[in-house]
Amino acid sequence: MARKVTQDEQGPYVIDADELDSQGGTVAVCQCGLSDNKPHCDGSHQATADEDDGVVYEYADDSADGERTVVSDD
Amino acid sequence: MARKVTQDEQGPYVIDADELDSQGGTVAVCQCGLSDNKPHCDGSHQATADEDDGVVYEYADDSADGERTVVSDD
Repeated sequence: MARKVTQDEQGPYVIDADELDSQGGTVAVCQCGLSDNKPHCDGSHQATADEDDGVVYEYADDSADGERTVVSDD
Repeated sequence: MARKVTQDEQGPYVIDADELDSQGGTVAVCQCGLSDNKPHCDGSHQATADEDDGVVYEYADDSADGERTVVSDD
């Protein structure tokens, strides 16, 4: 269970106390790569729940809305 | 300037006040995809500074330490 996603940012996103406050005390950072609201989580990781072990997928438009294809299967 | 990286996490990383405190008041989240300390930035984005516009790269081992190849060039 893994996926190839395209990253186009060239620097980090800095979270400080003001950011935490504006988000209600916690910030959930996307780690699946499919969020349409990066670097914040938008729940897109739910689409990865049924990925098979050892398989790498690619999601159309790097989004949980699209189809996915298998790019490698070990 | 973009790059394909493999993400294997299936849920978000949650940052709260304790996490901020433990990091000295700010958390820098990796957005380039090449950090070896994800979700935290480790400075690997410096390797992306000379990427060309319109080109998508793939870095060996998804790391700034490795070679990179061009996977598409529009």
